[in-house]
Amino acid sequence: MTDYSIGLDLGGTNLRAAAIDRDGKLLHLVTGHTQYSEGRDAIMGDMVEAIASLRDTQGPAGLAGIGVVVPGFISLREGVIRNCNNIPSLEDFPMRDELRERLNAPVILENDANAAALGEQWIGAGRGVRDLVLLTLGTGVGGGIISDGKLIRGFLGMGGELGHITVIPNGNPCGCGNRGCLEKHASATAISAMARLLGYGNVTAKEVYDRAVAGDERAIQIFTCMGEALGIALATLVNAFNSQLYLLSGGVIGAWDFFAPAMIAEARRRSFTFRTTDTRVERAKLGGEAGLYGAAYLPWAT
Amino acid sequence: MTDYSIGLDLGGTNLRAAAIDRDGKLLHLVTGHTQYSEGRDAIMGDMVEAIASLRDTQGPAGLAGIGVVVPGFISLREGVIRNCNNIPSLEDFPMRDELRERLNAPVILENDANAAALGEQWIGAGRGVRDLVLLTLGTGVGGGIISDGKLIRGFLGMGGELGHITVIPNGNPCGCGNRGCLEKHASATAISAMARLLGYGNVTAKEVYDRAVAGDERAIQIFTCMGEALGIALATLVNAFNSQLYLLSGGVIGAWDFFAPAMIAEARRRSFTFRTTDTRVERAKLGGEAGLYGAAYLPWAT
Repeated sequence: MTDYSIGLDLGGTNLRAAAIDRDGKLLHLVTGHTQYSEGRDAIMGDMVEAIASLRDTQGPAGLAGIGVVVPGFISLREGVIRNCNNIPSLEDFPMRDELRERLNAPVILENDANAAALGEQWIGAGRGVRDLVLLTLGTGVGGGIISDGKLIRGFLGMGGELGHITVIPNGNPCGCGNRGCLEKHASATAISAMARLLGYGNVTAKEVYDRAVAGDERAIQIFTCMGEALGIALATLVNAFNSQLYLLSGGVIGAWDFFAPAMIAEARRRSFTFRTTDTRVERAKLGGEAGLYGAAYLPWAT
Repeated sequence: MTDYSIGLDLGGTNLRAAAIDRDGKLLHLVTGHTQYSEGRDAIMGDMVEAIASLRDTQGPAGLAGIGVVVPGFISLREGVIRNCNNIPSLEDFPMRDELRERLNAPVILENDANAAALGEQWIGAGRGVRDLVLLTLGTGVGGGIISDGKLIRGFLGMGGELGHITVIPNGNPCGCGNRGCLEKHASATAISAMARLLGYGNVTAKEVYDRAVAGDERAIQIFTCMGEALGIALATLVNAFNSQLYLLSGGVIGAWDFFAPAMIAEARRRSFTFRTTDTRVERAKLGGEAGLYGAAYLPWAT
């Protein structure tokens, strides 16, 4: 009998759940079939079904625990999503307690980027590192902070919202109420918005990247702007945490060669600690799998 | 026999050392007599003498340990001050190891603001709180972060440098190489510099405060600017840490009524978490004693 854990990642478009053993070996993977537009009851049903089917397949005896990761601001203490732009029907609803009740088992709820940081530390780019900060660069920007081996959650579990660090005080407006949030200047959405300002019309971040590869100077400038915004945030995070390792993940890191030089130059200029220590800034390794692995690791992480 | 600890605070103008018991009771206080301009050997001699005299007075049997706090960027792992604007002669010198050798006892070296955060948590405004962030507003701005009961030190012990968070990317230049550091917009020095820009000439922060009390609108505006800069930083710190308590200390908090309203308004506007949770922002309680008490607490803090 293998000791295993069940992780579920409620991503932006679909849910995936997996049984994973203590060494990080994937035993079984299931994916959901529900459109999120069908609403909360359908999503909850899908989550319960995915987890229950994995438990039935692997057997209940070896189950170490269940971790569920979701996007948005989570109140860990209450087990409630306080703010979730992608799936607003899940806001202010006792998700963790209802999952516990319907599965008759303990469930740990966590933010997706926090879980991704755990996943990278467990079996990814942060293996063996006690202090790391992860930024997930996707539609938005998420953050996960591990200090001395443990996630920084804060008193309600809402810590690590690094996409909402102010990098440009009078910058672009954000749904959180702030202006100049990192995620409004350094995400796939920000890349598209900058492209629109430069007259490209309605293009994706990938299309902007393709133009940069082709030598388009304005497209390259967009990634430079993004790198500078990231560098401002990175300098602040280096000064605050003095972590050994800063990881970037998400689809946008495909454009690393275009944004990373500006990011590193800006961070060097702005952080004495960055300039004078061997602080590493690297790409994460697990890609879209980090949240799922981190979810499964949650029962072992406390 | 009382179990006690010795703390030493190497402040900006003088050193003070104390024997303090496990309940935070001050048993004995000594102050140094050396002018820092006399150089490193004189300062080191003064430190050793102060600590040794306390140990002789209290007796070596009950001594739990020795904590020494200093300003500047500290490499905790090496026990070395990497950057210290006030006392540059102490930079890049193995202070901790030399103190250990000359005292023939273990010594813990720590940054002054980190120690102040520990002190406030031990017997000050943060008593009983597991997550808190302290900002010391003096000549510069220091920071100390306690997460789940422990100081965030980072991999080299250089964490918590919150005075060097970027609040205005193209703001005032800083000795650390950055521009727009919090401490260049929200310290006693920043207040004097803003007053000079408004034509007051060479005035202290206290004089600017006195003018604000007398109803001088431009002096009041200076504190509003400072409050806004603090609010930008506070929002970032709330989003990153979700701490229950944010404490401000240092001489400048005498002007609380002039800068706090702008600070709170700015933080509310910029942080979803701040607006929607009962995050507290308060004045620290121990004043200039926090570093000394935190120094003494270091041997018990690990």
